[in-house]
Amino acid sequence: MRFLHTADWHIGKKLQGYDLLKEQEHVLSEILTIAKKEKVDAIVIAGDLYDRSIPAVEAVEMFNRLMIDWNLNEKFPIFAISGNHDSSVRLSAGTEWFSQTKFFLHTRFAESFQPIDYQNTQFFLLPYFEPISARSYFEDDTIRTVQQAMEKVVDQMQLAFDPAKKQVLVSHFFVTGSKKSDSETKIEVGGLDAIPGGLLEPFDYVALGHLHNQAALQQENARYSGSPLKFSLSEINQKKGVWIVDLTDTLVLDFQEITPLYDIAEVTASFKELLDPSFYHTINRENYLQIYLKDRAVIPNMMNQLRAIYPRILGVERVNGRHRSTSKRQTLEIKQPKKLAETFFTEMVGEPMTEQQMSWLEETLQELTETE
Amino acid sequence: MRFLHTADWHIGKKLQGYDLLKEQEHVLSEILTIAKKEKVDAIVIAGDLYDRSIPAVEAVEMFNRLMIDWNLNEKFPIFAISGNHDSSVRLSAGTEWFSQTKFFLHTRFAESFQPIDYQNTQFFLLPYFEPISARSYFEDDTIRTVQQAMEKVVDQMQLAFDPAKKQVLVSHFFVTGSKKSDSETKIEVGGLDAIPGGLLEPFDYVALGHLHNQAALQQENARYSGSPLKFSLSEINQKKGVWIVDLTDTLVLDFQEITPLYDIAEVTASFKELLDPSFYHTINRENYLQIYLKDRAVIPNMMNQLRAIYPRILGVERVNGRHRSTSKRQTLEIKQPKKLAETFFTEMVGEPMTEQQMSWLEETLQELTETE
Repeated sequence: MRFLHTADWHIGKKLQGYDLLKEQEHVLSEILTIAKKEKVDAIVIAGDLYDRSIPAVEAVEMFNRLMIDWNLNEKFPIFAISGNHDSSVRLSAGTEWFSQTKFFLHTRFAESFQPIDYQNTQFFLLPYFEPISARSYFEDDTIRTVQQAMEKVVDQMQLAFDPAKKQVLVSHFFVTGSKKSDSETKIEVGGLDAIPGGLLEPFDYVALGHLHNQAALQQENARYSGSPLKFSLSEINQKKGVWIVDLTDTLVLDFQEITPLYDIAEVTASFKELLDPSFYHTINRENYLQIYLKDRAVIPNMMNQLRAIYPRILGVERVNGRHRSTSKRQTLEIKQPKKLAETFFTEMVGEPMTEQQMSWLEETLQELTETE
Repeated sequence: MRFLHTADWHIGKKLQGYDLLKEQEHVLSEILTIAKKEKVDAIVIAGDLYDRSIPAVEAVEMFNRLMIDWNLNEKFPIFAISGNHDSSVRLSAGTEWFSQTKFFLHTRFAESFQPIDYQNTQFFLLPYFEPISARSYFEDDTIRTVQQAMEKVVDQMQLAFDPAKKQVLVSHFFVTGSKKSDSETKIEVGGLDAIPGGLLEPFDYVALGHLHNQAALQQENARYSGSPLKFSLSEINQKKGVWIVDLTDTLVLDFQEITPLYDIAEVTASFKELLDPSFYHTINRENYLQIYLKDRAVIPNMMNQLRAIYPRILGVERVNGRHRSTSKRQTLEIKQPKKLAETFFTEMVGEPMTEQQMSWLEETLQELTETE
């Protein structure tokens, strides 16, 4: 069995307000190219397919298009789970039909105990879950943490182990000893969500999702694939790509790097330098740039001047301590009630408001003003 | 060919704030019972499966569960289209897999010209569309109205007609001469969305969705199935159910009525009578009630007293002209900014706000207050 391990696609995610869809489409097509070149038998996706529970239509469209291509056209079996960013219910729609062409997408805790046998391997697909799901499944009120749950989960899974086969666990959680970066949602409370790596020993390989750094965990039989793209400045020095997992008598792991359309980079310079072609021709202006500004004086219309040259600015920070970041600026822009509601709606739903919604909002705000 | 024709399910719709999911589940299970009893060869659903483009998870879950049951378990072929209330993109996710078990769900204009042959019949599945889709598909800028579009659509479809077979069109629009009720969204501008019934003559049967009244159109070869439930007070006297369509040499139509869990009813009485057991034991208190109140005096705490006895009140109106409706009351309740945003979000997204969203909202409102 030779498969490709990826995770944390976060389709539809924005980076400081910049739409990443084009970059995501590029990097995911690179993954398919690797799968074909490496002649893998299957593709594993360890959760967080989407960035939010209600993805924008463009995100839904893209994921659907990808799966048609990978599974129906290229005939790759797919073993996937939902992550903490996905809506397990929304993602589960249609899965009964998907599995008929070996596109297995598990989103419910209870589904994880029936392994999917493929060639010489049993795949256990354990979606992201909260302890309450385990409490109710095992009818055991003493289960308070993910670790307690996982002890029972692994015991239960082992009952289905076929000694003649290899066992792969696909899951989405935080394994103790891993290093976190900024862009993962902080979900743990006092370490309650952490799994000791030792618990995962019974498996020949554990394909993990959740942490965006592929180097976060160096356990003999377990790896994070990491996200295929950098999603925050803190990931600036991380390698991004996918694992090719060869599971015959021994486990052989090969990390294949992917070059993104645009990288994240830092630049330290004075405002004058930044506007000087002889300076900016020496760097890749298309990258997502974190700018450290050497100046001390106030610079009028600074962001607009910079944006005319650098299309993807993550933030601008004064090296000498005076801060000015784009996110601050955005906060100031949305102080009007209508703009606030609109921004909030767009942010949450991932779609602009329709005319009908907008007129509903305006009418209600009007009423509000009149009665205050 | 013998099939069942239904439409306008609007799964997830609320009636004056009351959740209809339980009633919808009941009425849809009645439809399956009819399909089995009548031994139909297929089930046709003519659009508006959901009530909104982003349905609540409970709605998604229910629709998915139904289709698993109808298509995968009971093996009914399903011919369905999206309506104006559905998101064509969201609904299209997974359709390539669905069709492998004869669950055909068309959501895109271009998909409608390739009929689906089943037994002696060709099914043309034409989803709800705007004239712009036809303009772009036919590369014809003169198409301004749905009628102009439909002339071309029908011509194009006829090219694929097999004279040895029957032709059924499944579509979702307003046919001239039909009668509308309140609960359909007003989408037409000056009648631009209307189709003359004569245009539909080439088909042996046209299974329509859009209007909620099954009696809205009496054309020899075309019918609205109507919604399976009453969705507004204006539908109080409508029969609700499904058509059993028998299409052999001749067309035989049989409307099968369905009794809902709770009906819509009107009651005219004084407040004193309404609170009197000897009065309310004579009516079905569980129904959705429009109450016409004979009293003239102000009644403190009226709605709460009435709701304690009548769990599903659509509205209360003074017979003598003084109005007091529940919708007015709801308007008053949402005048606080936080409540406003929360109500708006819940209304649009169909889900309550998460704790994270709520805290985001609170923080932003706090900032807003501080800077004002």
